[in-house]
Amino acid sequence: MGQTRQLHLGAFMRPTTIHTAGWRYPGAWPDTNFNLPRLKYLAQRLEQGRFDAFFMADHLAVLNMPIDALKRSHTPTSFEPLTLLSALAGVTEHLGLIATASTTFEAPYHLARKFASLDHISGGRAGWNLVTTSNPDAALNFGLEEHVDHAERYRRGREFYDVVTGLWDSWADDAFVRDAESGLFLDPAKLHVLNHKGPHFSVRGPLNIARPVQGWPVIVQAGSSEDGRQIAAETAEVIFGAQNTLASGQAFYADVKGRMEKFGRNPDHLKILPGAFVVVGDTRQEAQDKRALLDSLVHDQSAIAALSIALGHDASGFDLDGPLPEIPESNASKSGRERAIELARRENLTVRQLAQKLGGYGGLQFVGTATDIADHMEEWLTTRASDGFNIMFPFLPAGLEDFVDKVVPELQRRGIFRREYAGTTLRENLGLPRPENRFFTPGS
Amino acid sequence: MGQTRQLHLGAFMRPTTIHTAGWRYPGAWPDTNFNLPRLKYLAQRLEQGRFDAFFMADHLAVLNMPIDALKRSHTPTSFEPLTLLSALAGVTEHLGLIATASTTFEAPYHLARKFASLDHISGGRAGWNLVTTSNPDAALNFGLEEHVDHAERYRRGREFYDVVTGLWDSWADDAFVRDAESGLFLDPAKLHVLNHKGPHFSVRGPLNIARPVQGWPVIVQAGSSEDGRQIAAETAEVIFGAQNTLASGQAFYADVKGRMEKFGRNPDHLKILPGAFVVVGDTRQEAQDKRALLDSLVHDQSAIAALSIALGHDASGFDLDGPLPEIPESNASKSGRERAIELARRENLTVRQLAQKLGGYGGLQFVGTATDIADHMEEWLTTRASDGFNIMFPFLPAGLEDFVDKVVPELQRRGIFRREYAGTTLRENLGLPRPENRFFTPGS
Repeated sequence: MGQTRQLHLGAFMRPTTIHTAGWRYPGAWPDTNFNLPRLKYLAQRLEQGRFDAFFMADHLAVLNMPIDALKRSHTPTSFEPLTLLSALAGVTEHLGLIATASTTFEAPYHLARKFASLDHISGGRAGWNLVTTSNPDAALNFGLEEHVDHAERYRRGREFYDVVTGLWDSWADDAFVRDAESGLFLDPAKLHVLNHKGPHFSVRGPLNIARPVQGWPVIVQAGSSEDGRQIAAETAEVIFGAQNTLASGQAFYADVKGRMEKFGRNPDHLKILPGAFVVVGDTRQEAQDKRALLDSLVHDQSAIAALSIALGHDASGFDLDGPLPEIPESNASKSGRERAIELARRENLTVRQLAQKLGGYGGLQFVGTATDIADHMEEWLTTRASDGFNIMFPFLPAGLEDFVDKVVPELQRRGIFRREYAGTTLRENLGLPRPENRFFTPGS
Repeated sequence: MGQTRQLHLGAFMRPTTIHTAGWRYPGAWPDTNFNLPRLKYLAQRLEQGRFDAFFMADHLAVLNMPIDALKRSHTPTSFEPLTLLSALAGVTEHLGLIATASTTFEAPYHLARKFASLDHISGGRAGWNLVTTSNPDAALNFGLEEHVDHAERYRRGREFYDVVTGLWDSWADDAFVRDAESGLFLDPAKLHVLNHKGPHFSVRGPLNIARPVQGWPVIVQAGSSEDGRQIAAETAEVIFGAQNTLASGQAFYADVKGRMEKFGRNPDHLKILPGAFVVVGDTRQEAQDKRALLDSLVHDQSAIAALSIALGHDASGFDLDGPLPEIPESNASKSGRERAIELARRENLTVRQLAQKLGGYGGLQFVGTATDIADHMEEWLTTRASDGFNIMFPFLPAGLEDFVDKVVPELQRRGIFRREYAGTTLRENLGLPRPENRFFTPGS
């Protein structure tokens, strides 16, 4: 091969830091989640750092933690993802714009339309992080007393994906001729009526917007459960992974890419990007000191709440100095629960120690100099533990600026990260093909 | 009174022209509905003309007319309103941004959140045109075989409004303290959990975004039926009216404003803006020639389709040279049907004549010189037939540029239209109060 495999980098930007105390760090902007000029500045800095995409997680409920933790959380007020990304499209030219949206609480027609609109507004930079929503509190905001169970959410999610992609293919790419002379605005032979009727959805179509610039916005997923891996192998183009050791990364990478063959998919057409919490220092000691200071700003109450969320189980009654008790199965996200249990076991942590780690951030982290961090990233890339990372910044703006100004140049120097964008669309920059329209062949 | 009553002007911008043949007019941009740089230019020109707002109608289905009319229509591809308005917020500073959204096919939590987000992104310029959606084809895109009937749509719409405004009041205006020192991000005493349980919706809350800049985005409505007038008198702050004669405008104005008292509302806190199709010429003859040329570009097939939509009844079998037959009641918009029947009766039109008028535009129109048009507008204002207009342009960009460059200065010269914006929010420019939070008293 002529060229070294390249890293792809997403920036995890909702919340702008996943660390509970990130807003309290000395010099940090406490309001980045909800300050548009600052978000515009950060998006432009990410583009300067040649990031593939700005990635927004999402939450459809505020009351997902006890009030004593909630009052210390910087996440309850945020912009709605699609409106924010549309605003950011106007101040960037290359940065991908990925929003999370739920297949459990949205209607496929609205969702297909919104993402198509963002894709046109941004000139082909939209991505959809398809989630089934593991937070049971969200159901209460949408008229459901009981949350939909895990397997049913995935069956619905899979059908939802078929409806949305089918709606995106409503029009051939050249359907709109706009011939003022003859009065023909569109070619009716290039319009497909979906007429979907399935167990969960009945949607006629066509969509009321032209086919997206990218054909389809890039499909992103995050589930690591058996159901999640299966739907990802079949449909995902990017996975926001949760593996936190090199070995588990390699195993996940091999497993999911190995499942793609039976769907007739090329493994290169799926980019696996684990979330990585990155703290940069000019020395290793400085980076570790930053991390320690940051963790020290997490309140006990916030820590216990984070543990409860990770487990899908109220941890407030646990003995803080004892080991993690047995946790019953629940309807919440399996990957978060398993990750927490594994971390406690691996590092032999008390409940308090585990809670503090999770209250800060308990997943994969790279804490060190730019060289240290580039070493880790290169190792993950070359040993096929990942195709890149979804970078989580510890605090804003300095954590992001440090990464862009110090780590990115080191990755570029090693020839494993772009100096210029390859194209104008998110697909082009990720090296993903543009999907053919299932109902129309080009030139026909 | 110190100051003459002032006109308020909205610009009807989705579709960018309501005239079926507007895209075919010589020199017109055929793709204005779906060309972002052009829409940005037009928004900036409207702001230069001191318009109150950019107003977007909406449609949730494409297949609402026969294919032979559809293929000549410029409306099937458009941006989704909220993503477009968020993009336009970045290139304007004062222009209000009003999007139509349906209470029949949306979830209140999503809708409250999106409009709150647009309001924050635009610095307080959002408006929500609350519609119950009269197009029965929309139901087929949302899993319903039969459209919801008119009265039931209005009952649901009324409850939907309560839920959305209640969610907007989830947080006191000063709830987010963000005190990094103490670690208190928000004051839990300034958080209200809605816990709405009604016949149509069960929504816990709170909303996951701070209270909108305007308290609530401006509430706009368009229904003219008995149900529509009643909900408007109780809740609307702007009415996009459909009255097409001075007398019917005065009657509607008096009726709706008269209904407000029993709800304890000040009639000045509702602005009635009928849609007005405006064609400007340097001479009256030139304006009439423009209108005639425009109408001549409407195909028969488009005309019959427009008549069918207005009636909520298939008109393709009607005798084109005969009078309009009796039309049975249907589940579609009552105001559109009644307006078409009244127009045919008043002007003694054949089916073809009526269809051509509706296929172009059959409602209120001002065709003449800037002086003529200003005369009409001033008469409507001073005789209390309206508080202004929602201007419909015949073609883009010239129809809009003519209005901004010729009619606006004439209105300003007469002292009935602003030369500078009064404030920074849409409410301030419309002269509407900021709603108090129903759950929190300022300073408490």
